[in-house]
Amino acid sequence: MLENIRLSREGGSIIILDQTRLPGEVSYLELKTREELFDAIRLLKVRGAPAIGIAAAYGYYLCAATDKDQPDFFRSMDDAERYLASARPTAVNLTWALARMRGCLKRNALLPREELVAELKREAVAIHEEDIANNLKISEYGLALLHEGDGVLTHCNAGPLATSHYGTALGPMLLAAERGVKIRVFADETRPLMQGARITAFELMQAGVDVTLICDNMAAAVMKSGKVNAVFVGADRVCRNGDAANKIGTLGLAVLAKHYGIPFYMFAPLSTLDMDTPTGSGVRIEQRDPDEVTELYFKQRIAPEDVKVYNPAFDVVDHELITGLVTEAGIITAPFEENFEKVLGKYKNAEL
Amino acid sequence: MLENIRLSREGGSIIILDQTRLPGEVSYLELKTREELFDAIRLLKVRGAPAIGIAAAYGYYLCAATDKDQPDFFRSMDDAERYLASARPTAVNLTWALARMRGCLKRNALLPREELVAELKREAVAIHEEDIANNLKISEYGLALLHEGDGVLTHCNAGPLATSHYGTALGPMLLAAERGVKIRVFADETRPLMQGARITAFELMQAGVDVTLICDNMAAAVMKSGKVNAVFVGADRVCRNGDAANKIGTLGLAVLAKHYGIPFYMFAPLSTLDMDTPTGSGVRIEQRDPDEVTELYFKQRIAPEDVKVYNPAFDVVDHELITGLVTEAGIITAPFEENFEKVLGKYKNAEL
Repeated sequence: MLENIRLSREGGSIIILDQTRLPGEVSYLELKTREELFDAIRLLKVRGAPAIGIAAAYGYYLCAATDKDQPDFFRSMDDAERYLASARPTAVNLTWALARMRGCLKRNALLPREELVAELKREAVAIHEEDIANNLKISEYGLALLHEGDGVLTHCNAGPLATSHYGTALGPMLLAAERGVKIRVFADETRPLMQGARITAFELMQAGVDVTLICDNMAAAVMKSGKVNAVFVGADRVCRNGDAANKIGTLGLAVLAKHYGIPFYMFAPLSTLDMDTPTGSGVRIEQRDPDEVTELYFKQRIAPEDVKVYNPAFDVVDHELITGLVTEAGIITAPFEENFEKVLGKYKNAEL
Repeated sequence: MLENIRLSREGGSIIILDQTRLPGEVSYLELKTREELFDAIRLLKVRGAPAIGIAAAYGYYLCAATDKDQPDFFRSMDDAERYLASARPTAVNLTWALARMRGCLKRNALLPREELVAELKREAVAIHEEDIANNLKISEYGLALLHEGDGVLTHCNAGPLATSHYGTALGPMLLAAERGVKIRVFADETRPLMQGARITAFELMQAGVDVTLICDNMAAAVMKSGKVNAVFVGADRVCRNGDAANKIGTLGLAVLAKHYGIPFYMFAPLSTLDMDTPTGSGVRIEQRDPDEVTELYFKQRIAPEDVKVYNPAFDVVDHELITGLVTEAGIITAPFEENFEKVLGKYKNAEL
């Protein structure tokens, strides 16, 4: 499988796979400055809630390495954190990873600057490696939900390229392929930026999973036909009451799944839980450039000049529509707030 | 407003607006042979259930004019009917218009051939003119459902270019603009062929209607926001029990509308009623070329080579999800079969 993010060998830059060029072209970019990283996140060259968290963690370390000899080092690190966090507002993993890096900075503030920077590098690598371990657990829990011959519908891309390894919602499908469990996946193309067509179909085909590409508006017809036994999607921010933001179009799928009696599972690491946001109405939804809608993948214009466009990047799935949230700590079901607190309590205690 | 279909001045060809070039280019095609007409329908250069019925009626007349001196004239007209009807299988208006032309042929079979051909021309013009009259009635009934300040969501294109004048589902919006009733329309772009982005947005903007373009998968978020007071869409075939086929994606909208308590109206002339098909399971759904999905509007490839694709052009809305069918005879509600029979009976009696 393709690697999506890594530090360069000498540690002075971040190498990312340019996901906007997939599937036609596999090309890597070397990001040396915070501005280059900001643009890469903003333009979805690196994308997926966990992956942008990992990229931002490496970015924070790089900023520290660059600025370490400045007199106002700690203030410049706060600026760097704010700047990187503003690249995309909806996914909580970006701010979560940066807050964790800040915690490491504060804990080690009195160390000699070189050692402090080395600690930050270790912390970023730890965030990356923990994501890999979490994904494997998430994938195993998800696989337990599937049976030979099942049909699964997915939206956008929550695979290895959106995370680190295996992915979240696609993890069970990739594990199924490894273990010879035959399933059938329907992949929504996911307008406007086509992550489903470009990346999910690509990742699943490479892994030998039986995948059929559909336009987003075909999901209802496929569900009605009886070919879908479960919906598996990622999540970008899960609120305290269980409301969950994810790629635009996810809410509609959840409503359809409820109508057709199909279990609807969202997949995310616990770092996606945002206990500080009580409900989905508190989630800031990123509004993106109208050109993404009016010009097909930034090339051919397909709408009248000056047409008004609404282009939210995410929507929020009401917790009543969610069968379960698949995490590295198992599958969490309603009542969500109560069960989130139990799981987080257990995890916090285990870490102490 | 642009004219979408007409006979050439000397009556020997059909002039159509090439709707695949909109909104970038307004260009007309002259169709002289049945093969050219077949291709124009197949490739959606002329599109919309009522419009392809009108085009086929003119085509039938042109075939008669061309073949009138052939010894096997009546058999060749049967062949022409079958051939034109096979261009697109789902919309009933195509077969309805051709059957009506065949009825005219049979009624006038004993006339001198020149006069017979003249009768067929009159019949095709009558089909066209009746569609204009029906649309105006449909639009008035639809306008009565709207209030100042309402938001309406529509899918695909059921405007003047899909019909003759005013259109069906867009008719009330165009009338509202003429009469100074301010409404706000959300237009689904309608993948894969983008009739919403290319044609609905274009028609409504030209008429001065406040229209906002969204991707199909944004409809749930817009409905949840409270900005949609009604959904207005066309219909390609309405079955005896009220199940109604329309552009792929319509079913999903109907389920969402039910979930959010939003009235869901379908718009069509009575010629779209197919009392010979008891339920939606009997509707043949046209499956179209995978390239429509994998290559954005036939230009830039966005999915892996050899990916499996499901590309149905239509889906079927279960009658339980339909608030009403807006026709030239008024708004028909459940129980559909009973009420269809009443309306059709009344219309048949009125015509006798």
